[in-house]
Amino acid sequence: MDDCVFCKIIREASAMELYRDAWTVAFMDVAGDVDGHILVIPKKHVTGILDCDAFTLNRIMDTVQKISRHLVAHCGYEGVNLLNASGECAGQSVPHFHIHLIPRKKQDGIDAWPTFPGKTQEIETVYQRLRLSDL
Amino acid sequence: MDDCVFCKIIREASAMELYRDAWTVAFMDVAGDVDGHILVIPKKHVTGILDCDAFTLNRIMDTVQKISRHLVAHCGYEGVNLLNASGECAGQSVPHFHIHLIPRKKQDGIDAWPTFPGKTQEIETVYQRLRLSDL
Repeated sequence: MDDCVFCKIIREASAMELYRDAWTVAFMDVAGDVDGHILVIPKKHVTGILDCDAFTLNRIMDTVQKISRHLVAHCGYEGVNLLNASGECAGQSVPHFHIHLIPRKKQDGIDAWPTFPGKTQEIETVYQRLRLSDL
Repeated sequence: MDDCVFCKIIREASAMELYRDAWTVAFMDVAGDVDGHILVIPKKHVTGILDCDAFTLNRIMDTVQKISRHLVAHCGYEGVNLLNASGECAGQSVPHFHIHLIPRKKQDGIDAWPTFPGKTQEIETVYQRLRLSDL
């Protein structure tokens, strides 16, 4: 899409790229919020997990895995965190599917778990609501 | 694995299950940290994104997508957050691959983005280190 900043990065190869194949690109996030913050995106413009076709989703995850293994095998890391927001209501800022990849090692001072507000309803109640319809 | 709590849930169907197929199970997380917290896990015992085979990874993501679409199509949600910790250093508590799925809607009072500590090195410096080896 012409006005999508991630589509522009794909077209112009203007980011600090770590990887690119026929379907995906991985590059450094420039937010500066945490060391090593990487984004993995599909070349095809899809918004998130909800509208992504299965083939593209699998290519994205293949690349996420490839990068994760590279970080551990060759870059001194021991694990990763993966984060995705699908939907503006979920905090998604750029409406082009992207998976955040945070390289991790012991005692790196990072806490990648959100501060959640606690439940407001009984889990069993929510469960009954979520399972009303057959998948 | 005999001593894995998630393998036990798979064997005994002892959780509040939302979905089960030949490769995956989705069920309610009982942590009570946020409404609607769901876990998607593979039946096969793999630890995380690093040691998961491509087929299993794709089955996990297919289920994550199926549940996400169900939540939006039938349960009143508008988006989702996905989180994964692969590795104890990344905050992984149960060493059986699991993707956290948090259903989201506007003004639900949830902030699913972690509080990151800020970068300690220049992004360009980290980038050069991460790309030293060819993927």
